[in-house]
Amino acid sequence: MEISQRAASMPSSPIRKLAKYADAAKRNGIHVYHLNIGQPDIPTPQCAIDAVRQTDRKILEYSPSQGYKSLRTKLVSYYAEYGIDLSPDEIIVTAGGSEAIQFAYMTCLNPGDEIIVTDPSYANYMAFAISAGAIVRSVRTRIEDGFKLPPIEEFEKQITPKTKAILICNPNNPTGYLYTKREMLQIRDLVKKHNLYLISDEVYREFIYTKAPYVSACHLEGIEDNVILVDSVSKRYSECGIRIGALITKNKEVRQAVMKFCQARLSPPLFGQVVAEASLSTPQEYMEQVYDEYLERRNFLLNELNKIPGVYSPTPMGAFYTMVQLPVDDAERFCQWCLTDFQYEGQTVMMAPGAGFYTHPEDGRNQVRMAYTLCCEDLAKAMVVLAKALEAYNNEETK
Amino acid sequence: MEISQRAASMPSSPIRKLAKYADAAKRNGIHVYHLNIGQPDIPTPQCAIDAVRQTDRKILEYSPSQGYKSLRTKLVSYYAEYGIDLSPDEIIVTAGGSEAIQFAYMTCLNPGDEIIVTDPSYANYMAFAISAGAIVRSVRTRIEDGFKLPPIEEFEKQITPKTKAILICNPNNPTGYLYTKREMLQIRDLVKKHNLYLISDEVYREFIYTKAPYVSACHLEGIEDNVILVDSVSKRYSECGIRIGALITKNKEVRQAVMKFCQARLSPPLFGQVVAEASLSTPQEYMEQVYDEYLERRNFLLNELNKIPGVYSPTPMGAFYTMVQLPVDDAERFCQWCLTDFQYEGQTVMMAPGAGFYTHPEDGRNQVRMAYTLCCEDLAKAMVVLAKALEAYNNEETK
Repeated sequence: MEISQRAASMPSSPIRKLAKYADAAKRNGIHVYHLNIGQPDIPTPQCAIDAVRQTDRKILEYSPSQGYKSLRTKLVSYYAEYGIDLSPDEIIVTAGGSEAIQFAYMTCLNPGDEIIVTDPSYANYMAFAISAGAIVRSVRTRIEDGFKLPPIEEFEKQITPKTKAILICNPNNPTGYLYTKREMLQIRDLVKKHNLYLISDEVYREFIYTKAPYVSACHLEGIEDNVILVDSVSKRYSECGIRIGALITKNKEVRQAVMKFCQARLSPPLFGQVVAEASLSTPQEYMEQVYDEYLERRNFLLNELNKIPGVYSPTPMGAFYTMVQLPVDDAERFCQWCLTDFQYEGQTVMMAPGAGFYTHPEDGRNQVRMAYTLCCEDLAKAMVVLAKALEAYNNEETK
Repeated sequence: MEISQRAASMPSSPIRKLAKYADAAKRNGIHVYHLNIGQPDIPTPQCAIDAVRQTDRKILEYSPSQGYKSLRTKLVSYYAEYGIDLSPDEIIVTAGGSEAIQFAYMTCLNPGDEIIVTDPSYANYMAFAISAGAIVRSVRTRIEDGFKLPPIEEFEKQITPKTKAILICNPNNPTGYLYTKREMLQIRDLVKKHNLYLISDEVYREFIYTKAPYVSACHLEGIEDNVILVDSVSKRYSECGIRIGALITKNKEVRQAVMKFCQARLSPPLFGQVVAEASLSTPQEYMEQVYDEYLERRNFLLNELNKIPGVYSPTPMGAFYTMVQLPVDDAERFCQWCLTDFQYEGQTVMMAPGAGFYTHPEDGRNQVRMAYTLCCEDLAKAMVVLAKALEAYNNEETK
């Protein structure tokens, strides 16, 4: 027996490769600052945890394949606040944003079909494409341009008769870039002209740090049937573990097809839905505190990062990641070295190698992604450690 | 834009098609006895619900992609009681048995590869195959033989160079059949001879009503690397909604490949794992009561069913379903008619049309699947209603 080609082609996450080195470092008593993961350290809203603590259910039965109506109804009000007008029927609850992406791919793409993403992008967009037998074509964005959308002609160059969809993440993971209204309108025109699906992952909409407006794919007029919105409660309420997201579209044919995949997997997680529904009543004060916290971290991290000789990161406008250029030839090797061969006063840092976010890994060879999901005090220590590590690494290299 | 061919090919569940008629009947004040679904009406063990009620978590963070080690360790003890010797590393926690099946397919089967199932079988085995681009070939079992395994030559006839796996469900959904030791050894020999994967779905092992031994695929010697066990806590603890299952294999290469799919979807549901782990401490008394309850229901239902003129069902040895032959030409039409055109004293029945469980639907044209997840009192009423419905339907037909 052999494993399938698609299983063999599935990428191993670059973070996973480093995890064993991080574990070994910890066993050796070294404190590892995790700049590598998008797991917020912010407490989940208490009202969400209380909803589970107060459950009076007697039978933990299947929920509807589309998700509880009560949750979908509450989500309608949530989206209305962002100027997105929906009915509960247009929302399909999924096991995280991840399942929404998978269902979107399975529904929109035949094996061999192509989807265009911006490079760098969330590594699992590529992994799910391999699962679905689809081919990813990429349009490169550049750190020196702050990862802004390249001229729309660059997208157009990638379009072939096999192209079925464009996927954007806005605000962006891993770059923190926020598409401008002008860019979104350009994407709209392109989608309309070539009659493509526009899959838009907008799970970070709460985290926009500039005065620029949030332009959802759902705000774009004239492509209502093309848009598939991917969403998740994971990041905004710090509840990544409950696995609740959503696939949202005005396109009835797409919804009916997605529902067949939903029915095959029976239902989304029950308690996750209980938590998500309660989370939607989170006091505004919590949301503001979390926002202020991330804003402070972003400002602090970017300031500290750009002070380190040879290090450069553009200021992310949203989400809680930033791509960072390091003065090293091979950031993956450096990330590993930090865990295996380095410590400063019993501490080191773990970062996500940039190459894993690019369809052409060499494009991110000297970059890492950092998440600012640590408090400023820890970020401060991590930046001291990083500066020392770069110094030591480059001294060792030139020896 | 068009939806993908695989989305278009995904079967709509025959039960789903009927759901709207059932809803309409209920709106008209008719009581519908649900013989159609495998959703137990048995209360979930209190210790499982209490575990969630007592959670003191502050951040609902991602769990490990493989599932919590504490849950996997406890599962090791559970399987040891069934003579299945495992280590925690050999267990991968999934979002229900459904995700385990999907991951097994994605890992073992290339698009165009073939998998052999027995007919009738759980409809979603076919649906997940379409998702994965795999082709299902079937070996028919027959109601008149009590759905026993056909001669092993029938399997061998279906094997082609594209065949990669055999999938069995034991005890079986929808037939309730339990494979004998002799049959399991035959399957082992076949798997070994042709070097196939054996995917074995054994989620109903607690529900075996005969004195016959439970022979797990994991008990078979000499094919340890071929076997992929699919499991779920859904049925045995009446907690279908929490979406916790497992993919279990001694085959390290398969596990490593499956883990890449696991990492892409990040993690299984957090609270589901909390519930599942606590469920493994369910008092033996609960398990015995549930067993006795299903045994009583099985005996009652089968006795009542076979009293109705023209109705035949072999006695299921396990699980909580039985396939029933009805004196009608088209059971799907009859099932719909029961919901749209019939009532007896304000009551009717909903059943799952048999055709949906066959790769060749015509083979199950006059069959339905019934689940005995209702109490005997309700089953008694449902059988009266069914007898009246058959009488009225056939009178109407011959008019």
